[in-house]
Amino acid sequence: MRIVFPLYPRFTALDAIGPYEVLSRLPGAEVVFAAVAPGPVTTDTGTLTVLAETALADIADCDVVVVPGGPGCLEAGQDAAYTGWLAAVHPKTRWTASVCSGSLLLGAAGILDGLPATSHWAVAETLPMFGAIPTPRRTVFTGKIVTAAGVASGIDMALALAAELTDRETAESIQLFIEYDPQPPFDTGSPDKAPAPMVERVRAQVMADV
Amino acid sequence: MRIVFPLYPRFTALDAIGPYEVLSRLPGAEVVFAAVAPGPVTTDTGTLTVLAETALADIADCDVVVVPGGPGCLEAGQDAAYTGWLAAVHPKTRWTASVCSGSLLLGAAGILDGLPATSHWAVAETLPMFGAIPTPRRTVFTGKIVTAAGVASGIDMALALAAELTDRETAESIQLFIEYDPQPPFDTGSPDKAPAPMVERVRAQVMADV
Repeated sequence: MRIVFPLYPRFTALDAIGPYEVLSRLPGAEVVFAAVAPGPVTTDTGTLTVLAETALADIADCDVVVVPGGPGCLEAGQDAAYTGWLAAVHPKTRWTASVCSGSLLLGAAGILDGLPATSHWAVAETLPMFGAIPTPRRTVFTGKIVTAAGVASGIDMALALAAELTDRETAESIQLFIEYDPQPPFDTGSPDKAPAPMVERVRAQVMADV
Repeated sequence: MRIVFPLYPRFTALDAIGPYEVLSRLPGAEVVFAAVAPGPVTTDTGTLTVLAETALADIADCDVVVVPGGPGCLEAGQDAAYTGWLAAVHPKTRWTASVCSGSLLLGAAGILDGLPATSHWAVAETLPMFGAIPTPRRTVFTGKIVTAAGVASGIDMALALAAELTDRETAESIQLFIEYDPQPPFDTGSPDKAPAPMVERVRAQVMADV
């Protein structure tokens, strides 16, 4: 089972590493970190660099693709080598997934036209630019596409996807392996739970990064 | 505020990247991924490589150190260059933190003697080898040391630590930024929630990796 993470400069690390930590533990999983140009790829903070071992052009098909989000998605969405690869590989996948603003990249590749999708709460309103129907849920499954909300939601998405790819017990075992028994010390993880001024401040931060 | 992640071969990616995604967003944070030998460091799955930009020997002090766990912790715990650095830097930190079996590395560095600590549930029973008192909680704060349970618990730990390093509102804003509003599709994230046969199977998997 070949699982590809197509990286690009200024992606958000946890968008990819959360699902990676789940999906890489599936029996028979072969994980590939790839990019238009293979080599070091630096994340949005500028302080973490991950190696993309493979060129996207060298990957003709795969079982699962997981597209991370991040402020670099604007440039990636205008890179025909990136979106063209997504468009070409999507018909051959078992599942096409995104986390955070990664759904905007699926949109830029023409994959979400007319379909419900989610994204980071601060950018979800841009989904209709790509013909997608904003659906404010943590994960949105539609056919063989699954989109997840912001950054940390990729872990929830990947566990649900793991069950689809194998079975529930396998996914539950991975949850136990990674001790994903969340106990956040605060309860401000979504815009409907956080105070309105905080929501507006963080929205401005997110937009400033892009 | 200098925050160092001391990596080693076969660490578990999410142990580091979860806390990184939180702590790197603190105002004034300067994150450093380091290792005994700087350069590419491959994680436990063998499919993800992260660059350690700095040699541990070149870091004389820092505000925060976050030690990840992973099956490579056994070798790292026997590497005097690694544990010696931990022991030398700890007296100078504001906070010394670990995730998962990273607490065994704090133990190997002599930092946990007589102190309560947690770790991945499958290896927590080895904490007394280092004089630590196993404490089965998601995060254990003792003085300026905080240990977290398995893999995903590092996100919970880092949010609590973020509040200690700054203030509660800053930490809550980061939680909103990374949309950490967990909605796991299953409820098997800890050994007291999962069925006993699953616990024993996963325990064997964890031990086989080490």
